Amino acid sequence: MTTFVPPVRDLRFVLEELLEHRSLALPGFEEASPELVEAVLEEAARLAGEVWAPLNASGDRQGCRRRDDGGVSVPDGFAEAYRAYAEGGWNGIGVAEAHGGQGLPEVVASAVQEMLHGANMALGLCPMLTAGAIEALAQHGSADQQARYLAPLVEGRWTGTMNLTEPQAGSDLSRVRTRAVPCTEEPGRYRLYGQKIFITWGEHDCAENIVHLVLARTPDAPEGNKGISLFLVPKLLVEADGSLGERNDVVCSGLEHKLGIHGSPTCTLSFGERDGAIGYLVGEQGRGLNHMFTMMNEARHKVGIEGIGVAERACQQARDYALERVQGRGADGRDRAIAEHPDVKRMLLSMRGRTDALRALALTAAALMDEARHSADAAAREAARARAEVLIPVIKAFSTDQAVDIASLGVQVHGGMGYIEETGAAQLLRDARIAPIYEGTNGIQALDLAGRKLGRDGGAAMLALIDEMTATAEALSAGPELRPLGESLAAGVEDLRAATTLVLEHGRDPDALQAVATPYLTLAGHVLCAWQMGRAALKARAALEAGSTDAFYTAKLAAAEHVLRRWLPVGRAQRAVIEVGASRLATLDPAAL
Amino acid sequence: MTTFVPPVRDLRFVLEELLEHRSLALPGFEEASPELVEAVLEEAARLAGEVWAPLNASGDRQGCRRRDDGGVSVPDGFAEAYRAYAEGGWNGIGVAEAHGGQGLPEVVASAVQEMLHGANMALGLCPMLTAGAIEALAQHGSADQQARYLAPLVEGRWTGTMNLTEPQAGSDLSRVRTRAVPCTEEPGRYRLYGQKIFITWGEHDCAENIVHLVLARTPDAPEGNKGISLFLVPKLLVEADGSLGERNDVVCSGLEHKLGIHGSPTCTLSFGERDGAIGYLVGEQGRGLNHMFTMMNEARHKVGIEGIGVAERACQQARDYALERVQGRGADGRDRAIAEHPDVKRMLLSMRGRTDALRALALTAAALMDEARHSADAAAREAARARAEVLIPVIKAFSTDQAVDIASLGVQVHGGMGYIEETGAAQLLRDARIAPIYEGTNGIQALDLAGRKLGRDGGAAMLALIDEMTATAEALSAGPELRPLGESLAAGVEDLRAATTLVLEHGRDPDALQAVATPYLTLAGHVLCAWQMGRAALKARAALEAGSTDAFYTAKLAAAEHVLRRWLPVGRAQRAVIEVGASRLATLDPAAL
Repeated sequence: MTTFVPPVRDLRFVLEELLEHRSLALPGFEEASPELVEAVLEEAARLAGEVWAPLNASGDRQGCRRRDDGGVSVPDGFAEAYRAYAEGGWNGIGVAEAHGGQGLPEVVASAVQEMLHGANMALGLCPMLTAGAIEALAQHGSADQQARYLAPLVEGRWTGTMNLTEPQAGSDLSRVRTRAVPCTEEPGRYRLYGQKIFITWGEHDCAENIVHLVLARTPDAPEGNKGISLFLVPKLLVEADGSLGERNDVVCSGLEHKLGIHGSPTCTLSFGERDGAIGYLVGEQGRGLNHMFTMMNEARHKVGIEGIGVAERACQQARDYALERVQGRGADGRDRAIAEHPDVKRMLLSMRGRTDALRALALTAAALMDEARHSADAAAREAARARAEVLIPVIKAFSTDQAVDIASLGVQVHGGMGYIEETGAAQLLRDARIAPIYEGTNGIQALDLAGRKLGRDGGAAMLALIDEMTATAEALSAGPELRPLGESLAAGVEDLRAATTLVLEHGRDPDALQAVATPYLTLAGHVLCAWQMGRAALKARAALEAGSTDAFYTAKLAAAEHVLRRWLPVGRAQRAVIEVGASRLATLDPAAL
Repeated sequence: MTTFVPPVRDLRFVLEELLEHRSLALPGFEEASPELVEAVLEEAARLAGEVWAPLNASGDRQGCRRRDDGGVSVPDGFAEAYRAYAEGGWNGIGVAEAHGGQGLPEVVASAVQEMLHGANMALGLCPMLTAGAIEALAQHGSADQQARYLAPLVEGRWTGTMNLTEPQAGSDLSRVRTRAVPCTEEPGRYRLYGQKIFITWGEHDCAENIVHLVLARTPDAPEGNKGISLFLVPKLLVEADGSLGERNDVVCSGLEHKLGIHGSPTCTLSFGERDGAIGYLVGEQGRGLNHMFTMMNEARHKVGIEGIGVAERACQQARDYALERVQGRGADGRDRAIAEHPDVKRMLLSMRGRTDALRALALTAAALMDEARHSADAAAREAARARAEVLIPVIKAFSTDQAVDIASLGVQVHGGMGYIEETGAAQLLRDARIAPIYEGTNGIQALDLAGRKLGRDGGAAMLALIDEMTATAEALSAGPELRPLGESLAAGVEDLRAATTLVLEHGRDPDALQAVATPYLTLAGHVLCAWQMGRAALKARAALEAGSTDAFYTAKLAAAEHVLRRWLPVGRAQRAVIEVGASRLATLDPAAL
């Protein structure tokens, strides 16, 4: 049985010291004091550590089960843990007060979510999907839809799903075939027919109702993306007064047997096997993909945070094992915990440094999302939005790639015990492995970054970021102690600048761009993370200079050094990769591989 | 259901074109013609592809089961598949004829083993462990032990195990506590008491008998390594005439529940729960660890090959899926298989290029092992042995690290389907994940390379390799077409030369050395693999220039370009890491991480 201690201290370091609580200064957050934020984090840590975390291993072992009646049983304790979450009001902490939420800054909601995902990623997926449904309805739902569905979703009495994928339509959603036929009796009301796969928390018994948001094609709609609309399909129909009516014609027809997140039911949903599933058009007809994409940024940000939560848990577990496990001896001939052997300590430091860096980057993006929504200044809102949107594909892809690697290194630190399922280290690797795939594969994220996000403003938002990172490098280089870190960061930033120019040049040829998109995202991820750790090093050194003797700051300096001087150089190599370009890849026949 | 086509063409490319069948020219291999080798590979491919491979997924699903009688049932079909292997004479192909084997070169045996591991890693572990037992007895067993045990092991009628690990003794075997008490009635006969864990194929019903080789401590033996001896403990006692006698006092008291290799029973073995397990001293008392290490090089080489087998299967499976799966459209607006999307093709090429490189390196080491044993020239034998011993920790650690990454990339290519267990891609990741851990963790390999293997000759064997790699870089740079590859290799080789000097300087301080050992091994792995692909590029270009239109060679050129120009730069970054050294790592308190 492993324990998980939600990383309140590390989260507070980012919110208070790195971000200096800047979100709290924005209009609309007047009531959110630093003390309130601290209390929220402590309370969330209790829920995550005491209620959710103990179910992580048992949920993995037990998994989900599809019952004969078509229902799905989730692991023992999950329903109660979910209810504790909902009844505690956690589902609405980041939702606007106008929609029944508590309207706390995104940066606080993100910190809470990281703790919950670290505690129990499989369970965390349920509210993550609900948040997407809330966002979709808040942005695109009609007044009636908002009145009927939002409150119970925000309260967590109902949960939400995203129904995008079909067997032939994954990354390429233009291939969606699910049909939505208008009911003549009532405008906006449709009957849906089709099959959706890989639907996370598509069926379960933890909530009173499930609100499915479904991409489908209306009759006579054009082929491709423009023929796709977004529909709301409740599991139980909802009367005008909000009471629950009869069962809709949507059933769970299969449950996947997956590598990990066994506690999260991944369903095949069949719509319209009887007389058609009743659905309601959300937003405009033919704009389903656009509506979906408006909430995609946020969902992708949260998948990145999910990776960070699992990475944090892997760090803790590896450290705790390595501090306990004695093998070999030190130079003094005395027994040595493996954590003291430099090769193992190097692995622990690598895990910790990267996790800290990813967390700082993800919360920086959350603070930008707050600014984009709440700043009194329109230009500031726009700049923050543009910067957040550049960061988000990096956060999604890079955090999840790194989380897989960090969890794998966690297995390695455990030696043979890491390969035994009871130890729990292997579960983290299995769970983390989905995150680079769903919510847009990491390859799709790279195309989004290198293509859309750079292309639309000629790289302006990225170049502004680069200038800011250069300033951090200069601050590090101002004194002798951190100068090696500053020089390393400066070199990385210059690589990113040069690579950005190259990628913008490739922008005219989609295939040439695609050949370098992932290397570009990988480079950007390393440099952005290094920047965050450079900032952390400045804060840590300042604290130590001010007289602190807290080992926390000494460890942060070591982590920053590791990220900037041992890990950033590996990422910098991607500049050379980008310079090679497609080359022989362009004409290679993949069948010959 | 996935298919696996043993990579005969790729193996022949290495044996025939890269290595020019040099092993066949050695004394003792006069009867092994290229035609015979080809026939052996084809026949082994049939066994691997048609008999072993189809059991890979079912074996994973079914796993092993400990029965009430203490026996262990392996998955359906495994016993028959193992017997087909043994009866085909495959167990003895690399064993000297003096010991009842066929005495084929190690390079041929290694090629066969790669195919078998790619087909079914869990099953492949059974003969891999037997090979270790054969090696131990052939080198250190008494004449009587050899006469009694070798023939049935070589024939595969009996299998062997290695009993090293105990709960408190993993990487640090000096902590072994299992006791071996001499029987007064018969010299060399002992009774063993203790518990061993993580014993691969420690109990099963595929063979008539199991020969356990066990590290244990004799009474009054000194503490630490010098008190440990090696014992042979048969499951069923063996009479002087070789017939099987009564059951020995060793039982399987537990079976591990592991992340992967579910078809391979990983046992806890209890010795002496009744009146002591009868064991026989092998070699000299107090030299158990030395005897174990003499066969360790070979076993580590085979674990590297195991990783390559799984990587090959991952390459094939990802390629086949990506060629079938249609998503998105090309610039011409037509449907496109994902294999044609440059980002996916890049992943496939990265998997293929690295797998090819690792294979060439592992078989190069096997050819050196042949030379070390069979060359007529003593100096050549010694040089080959030294070079092979430098390569082996790299092959073990780097091939297995890369295999995990390649299998993980294979999951990624499959998108959502990769996360579903039925697809089979996830199994390869789960199976591969053990290989960086067992047979000496990859951290231990790095210490062996950077400490022992460099230190004992002041880096002479490595520097000789570096000179040879420089020559390959020059050959590549001789013409314009491959010059960019040559320049990249030359730069990598120079990094390795500089890093070798640095590591030799660190050699005097064990902790400083340990801090850079893994970065050094990683750098060496990249450069050595790049060297092999440089050699492959030269051969492929020569074939194309000679008029071949075989897409095999075009793909090899693309793979070589990828390895040398897109992947080697990432490894080269480790030079900077080595230059940083321990720095803040030295004084960091790991408890603060």
